[in-house]
Amino acid sequence: MKHRGYNFGASQTMLPTFVLESVQTELLNWEGQGLSILELGHRTPEFMALMQSIENDFRDLLHIPEDYCVLFLGGAARSQFGMIPFNWLQDGKKGAYLVSGFWSHLAYTEAVKIKPAYCVASSEKIGFRDIPARSEWQLQDNTAYLYYTANETIHGTYCKFPTPIPDHMPVVVDMTSCILSEPIAVNDYGLIFAGGQKNLTTAGLTVVILRKALLDSAKTDSLPTMLAYATHAKHHSLYATPPVFNCYLAGKMLQWIKAQGGVETLHRINRQKASLLYDYLDTSSFYRCHVANAVRSTTNVCFTIDPPHLEAMFVARANDCGLLGLQGHRVVGGLRASLYNAMPLEGVYALLNFMEDFAKEHAT
Amino acid sequence: MKHRGYNFGASQTMLPTFVLESVQTELLNWEGQGLSILELGHRTPEFMALMQSIENDFRDLLHIPEDYCVLFLGGAARSQFGMIPFNWLQDGKKGAYLVSGFWSHLAYTEAVKIKPAYCVASSEKIGFRDIPARSEWQLQDNTAYLYYTANETIHGTYCKFPTPIPDHMPVVVDMTSCILSEPIAVNDYGLIFAGGQKNLTTAGLTVVILRKALLDSAKTDSLPTMLAYATHAKHHSLYATPPVFNCYLAGKMLQWIKAQGGVETLHRINRQKASLLYDYLDTSSFYRCHVANAVRSTTNVCFTIDPPHLEAMFVARANDCGLLGLQGHRVVGGLRASLYNAMPLEGVYALLNFMEDFAKEHAT
Repeated sequence: MKHRGYNFGASQTMLPTFVLESVQTELLNWEGQGLSILELGHRTPEFMALMQSIENDFRDLLHIPEDYCVLFLGGAARSQFGMIPFNWLQDGKKGAYLVSGFWSHLAYTEAVKIKPAYCVASSEKIGFRDIPARSEWQLQDNTAYLYYTANETIHGTYCKFPTPIPDHMPVVVDMTSCILSEPIAVNDYGLIFAGGQKNLTTAGLTVVILRKALLDSAKTDSLPTMLAYATHAKHHSLYATPPVFNCYLAGKMLQWIKAQGGVETLHRINRQKASLLYDYLDTSSFYRCHVANAVRSTTNVCFTIDPPHLEAMFVARANDCGLLGLQGHRVVGGLRASLYNAMPLEGVYALLNFMEDFAKEHAT
Repeated sequence: MKHRGYNFGASQTMLPTFVLESVQTELLNWEGQGLSILELGHRTPEFMALMQSIENDFRDLLHIPEDYCVLFLGGAARSQFGMIPFNWLQDGKKGAYLVSGFWSHLAYTEAVKIKPAYCVASSEKIGFRDIPARSEWQLQDNTAYLYYTANETIHGTYCKFPTPIPDHMPVVVDMTSCILSEPIAVNDYGLIFAGGQKNLTTAGLTVVILRKALLDSAKTDSLPTMLAYATHAKHHSLYATPPVFNCYLAGKMLQWIKAQGGVETLHRINRQKASLLYDYLDTSSFYRCHVANAVRSTTNVCFTIDPPHLEAMFVARANDCGLLGLQGHRVVGGLRASLYNAMPLEGVYALLNFMEDFAKEHAT
């Protein structure tokens, strides 16, 4: 393919061409330092200043209060599934998990493996097509935190902040696939984490927003130092060598988000993009969306084709037209259009045109 | 600085300009796929094929036998300090640590924090200027593994493979700063690990070479899944989202190493580069190298100036001349010239010329 396509994939996601061109331009000699950002030492004043400006921009965009720390950690978000119970489930305290899809189920399974944890409610029986109603939840005494996943990429559902929450119970949330796609009330949360490879940067960086007071209740004496949030808070994310390039790219992305008008503006556009698709799906008998209306994800629009044997052809033809990564996750199959921040409205219109043509050709 | 300099830093290190140009050229559209490598999904056939070719090249270059697995893990090498004891120190088994510098000391401290471990011998009393002699080591019964650090970047020492080793005792080695700089006999080791940001790629990837049989003796039932080596071996490093870009860059570096003539050729050049510097230091009364001759690192040449107040000026002037990153690590101070694979002989000659001029100007 000669030109860049529209990447609807959900793993590493589309990045703005403007950002990529900026990285490309300065790749051999960053800011006239005589070396590439790929070669820059993580303890140089230049990199430390860069990290500070990245943190500042991130705080600005999400209105993160002073009593929260921001951590930039190397590696995949999945490490958090173990770190969270390790830090806070002790002295008989239990973790409460709301299981609403693949990722929250995995986090719950992981917690149970290593510490006391329980499932508050699950929508597994209905194929994760809805979020368990608040009335069904069963919170237990001695719960250290309530954990949920805001956006389930594989099942295409979105879970709003769960209310009401018992007093003083910290809420822990996985925002990997929706961070920076919408405004959030950080004060509602104890800990927010997100793998970076969606709206923030490329794969290899995980960001954590953590209420500082929670560090006091973490017990880390017998934990590897790298697994204690307190370590990274104390060392301002520089205890170990951070993924320098990923941090740098995050800085570029945050600047880009600011230039778009911030998270509020992007949220408006994101809702517009998703509405266009869901509205079309709801009027079609060829395409189907099985997710309950009230919990449909703005980020990952999952759908199927009737008959399903046409889905592989759909993906291949779309790919030829520069509409990339439309296959659903291997766990559930079907089709999925991921609409992260960098996906422009034009990409959605191009997809809609393609879908309409494909339906006309193949609908019986 | 208009032009690229010679980067003598030891954190993220110099990369070949040829490799950087190649990354730059294809940054917006990788292999005609219509997207950037920074956007490529980690479960696409294209990325999985790339990972296989990277592993093949890595195996070729280091002659890694079939009974070893190769793991590409996200995050910093420091995570291994906890993972190794967690996987193998159980049922009263102890880890034996040879403490020969900052990094092995840190690994030992970390092991003691979480599991039974002991120090076989330490050269801390002599400021880590030498490696503890084999005759001083005290290995105990019931030892699960012997751990050492091959190259100590901060103290500028190199520790050869320790012999003799009691039968069946696996040797675990941190090769972060010397991997791919010299041939190794993989069969001698149970586990080799290395942070990627030296000779392999940019910061954010850690590579592990592990004797498969050791997976059987690891006890991981109550460990977070991400901390079990068996997880990553079973899933071919794709259990969690890997740092895609770092892996891709590693692939470019491995190809570059092959084009240079392989690890054997680079080792010859690396020794030549280091000899030039050490020979000069040994004839100078202005510069001093305090490391015992027999254990001097080929990778990190540490030295001081007499009088020491000139060192800051040395670093600044060198920087102006495009000789970057020559300050010593903050733990020990002094000066350090790191000579990783990508540092050409020309860079060493440029440094020698600068050192000679600086000495002439300031020697009393």
